[in-house]
Amino acid sequence: MQAELITIGDEILIGQTIDTNSAWMGKELNALGIQVSQITSIKDERNAIRSAILAAEKSAAKIILITGGLGPTKDDITKHVLCEYFETELVRNEEVLAKIQAFFKSRGREMLESNNMQADLPKACTVLLNDMGTASGMWFEKGDTIFVSMPGVPYEMKHLMSDRVFPKILERFELPAIFHKTIMTDGIGESFLVELIKDWENSLVAEEIAIAYLPSPGIVRVRLTAQGQNKATLEEKVLRKANELHQLVPQYIFGEDDISLEEALAAALKAKGKTIATAESCTGGYIAHLLTSISGSSAYYLGGFVSYDNQVKIETLKVSKESIEDDGAVSKTVVEQMANGARNLLKTDFAIATSGIAGPDGGTEEKPVGTVWIAIASEKGVQAKKFLFEQNRERNIRRSAMAALSMVLKAVK
Amino acid sequence: MQAELITIGDEILIGQTIDTNSAWMGKELNALGIQVSQITSIKDERNAIRSAILAAEKSAAKIILITGGLGPTKDDITKHVLCEYFETELVRNEEVLAKIQAFFKSRGREMLESNNMQADLPKACTVLLNDMGTASGMWFEKGDTIFVSMPGVPYEMKHLMSDRVFPKILERFELPAIFHKTIMTDGIGESFLVELIKDWENSLVAEEIAIAYLPSPGIVRVRLTAQGQNKATLEEKVLRKANELHQLVPQYIFGEDDISLEEALAAALKAKGKTIATAESCTGGYIAHLLTSISGSSAYYLGGFVSYDNQVKIETLKVSKESIEDDGAVSKTVVEQMANGARNLLKTDFAIATSGIAGPDGGTEEKPVGTVWIAIASEKGVQAKKFLFEQNRERNIRRSAMAALSMVLKAVK
Repeated sequence: MQAELITIGDEILIGQTIDTNSAWMGKELNALGIQVSQITSIKDERNAIRSAILAAEKSAAKIILITGGLGPTKDDITKHVLCEYFETELVRNEEVLAKIQAFFKSRGREMLESNNMQADLPKACTVLLNDMGTASGMWFEKGDTIFVSMPGVPYEMKHLMSDRVFPKILERFELPAIFHKTIMTDGIGESFLVELIKDWENSLVAEEIAIAYLPSPGIVRVRLTAQGQNKATLEEKVLRKANELHQLVPQYIFGEDDISLEEALAAALKAKGKTIATAESCTGGYIAHLLTSISGSSAYYLGGFVSYDNQVKIETLKVSKESIEDDGAVSKTVVEQMANGARNLLKTDFAIATSGIAGPDGGTEEKPVGTVWIAIASEKGVQAKKFLFEQNRERNIRRSAMAALSMVLKAVK
Repeated sequence: MQAELITIGDEILIGQTIDTNSAWMGKELNALGIQVSQITSIKDERNAIRSAILAAEKSAAKIILITGGLGPTKDDITKHVLCEYFETELVRNEEVLAKIQAFFKSRGREMLESNNMQADLPKACTVLLNDMGTASGMWFEKGDTIFVSMPGVPYEMKHLMSDRVFPKILERFELPAIFHKTIMTDGIGESFLVELIKDWENSLVAEEIAIAYLPSPGIVRVRLTAQGQNKATLEEKVLRKANELHQLVPQYIFGEDDISLEEALAAALKAKGKTIATAESCTGGYIAHLLTSISGSSAYYLGGFVSYDNQVKIETLKVSKESIEDDGAVSKTVVEQMANGARNLLKTDFAIATSGIAGPDGGTEEKPVGTVWIAIASEKGVQAKKFLFEQNRERNIRRSAMAALSMVLKAVK
């Protein structure tokens, strides 16, 4: 079963909004055995919307999911174009109107006429009630194809997909099986990983398993995919090959199924009942942010320091002034003292410290932009490692954080 | 002049990669007066690639930019499909080969046969040398349409676009003028903003200026667009209407042209020669991360604390134990002491503190998930404000950070 996604909105084409909705939808649809064959982003414009829907209708996809263009403001015209396309008209839906009124009342907010008009919906559609906002979803059928229009606000779209669209899709279609397994690797580049596992990769052909390498800063995801009729058979063969990969390069694998390094670390810390603290210079709070993005992180993350200024390193973290003067803030001795300082202050089992030159300024011949020292302190003492990342500030921060999480994860394990 | 973007890669359709390239390209192309009329994401598959290129060729777009599918691994087939499409063949390019070899040598990395093969390029294309990686760009022409294929790695694509593709496009086409101005607002929802400025909005029609509202957590961007022949005329009328908006709702405007709140704050702090510190509980380092994402931030950001555990609030930030016991960690008294504590410790002009319940756990009837206290300390004393955001952890962290930056920006100004 194939699906096409259509996102409507000038903001995506002009680059002011990044299309995160499609990624979420692609992932969720795949889990149901539905493959997204195309994503099309078009303008908030009658002809563009009509042509995109028509092209999708003519494709092999039987599920066409449309997001965006349903807000109360003047630049949103999707609803009118849908009426035209499906030869129907808008009628005021009293149930939706009552819901919108209740929505505004519960938030103590004044209601505008443009909000009332959100209860005007195409006669020919099945209305999908939206519990998170004022724009309803619309489900149309034409021949053996279904068309769903939803608001583009991510949490409203996710609610409508999860609670309204998926149940109706499962009722309407008989879906073939698809099975993915993603193995998460870190600390090795894509080309080197491919070279290391090429014999194993070649053995996938006979099993009809597809492979994809998905690199991101510091991490390469290896995704295996099999399709067929019997989910159990697919699962068995994919997991068997995944297991072979685990045995082949265990030192580079930190988890499966899109788990992040911070999630893997969270799981390891929880399993062992250990706690952690951070002392960040070049990563500037990013590691703390990654750790605290996980709900329940207060169980193992006690807190941290962003010691951007040297004075903070000296006064708060008790780094010796001499070390900073002699070796510089980006050095083994300083990063080790930062890690020990954070661990002692917060009395945690582990502490991570980073000190580096994120760039674009601050590099020297001896310590170019991208030079980063990372230390991990634990009851076993402190270990530090030097990295040379790249020229780009954002990527240096990201790669430093990934390398630090990887180091501490190995230490915790 | 219209352009279409085609992104190739299963990873986008399956939702494992978010397409950030297209947003960047859309923004840059617009600045040149080129409008992106469609973005199409397709699989790493011969037929899908052929059909997408053919459909784009048949459209009104004269510039077709293709990213992705040029890596050294087996799932990347774009180059071969391009040869077929443009009826040409691969030939080894010695200049590119030498470049790839030098690239590996400079990084002290071993070279693989798959890397050599990246020097095999279509005979019919103009090769666009890639200084940041091993996959070259390819520029094809057919009739009055140009087709460019580039790697999907963001910094390689950006380098090729900026240094190779844009100069060639400017040489090849005469471009009409387009002028955008985006006004950044915060602290007011989209519907209320629209209601407040509706007369002004209605006056845009006569000027042939298009308007779009682009909401994101805590922020609504208002974008004005005019197109025509004379850039100076467009600029004059758009800036005149933008200026009217500034006078209409000054209290909600923090900047222009997609400046972020942290960038606006950075500019204000630098202009006044002031410094800042952070003490974060519910935002967990996210505010520090936003501030330090800006290069040169060490000039005004001295550092901060992530006081996730109450012990850190008490011991490091000197929050009184009684306040935490009597009022709870999420309270006016505690957040005020956190802000004062951070400001005193780091001797800064300003300090931001946050304490709240990000969720999904930890809410009570009295203090539900989304309850957040934010305080700003300065030489004028400390001011605190209570917010009630929403149910979602990620959005609560984001909205808390935006509200905190907005508060401190007003205080600095």
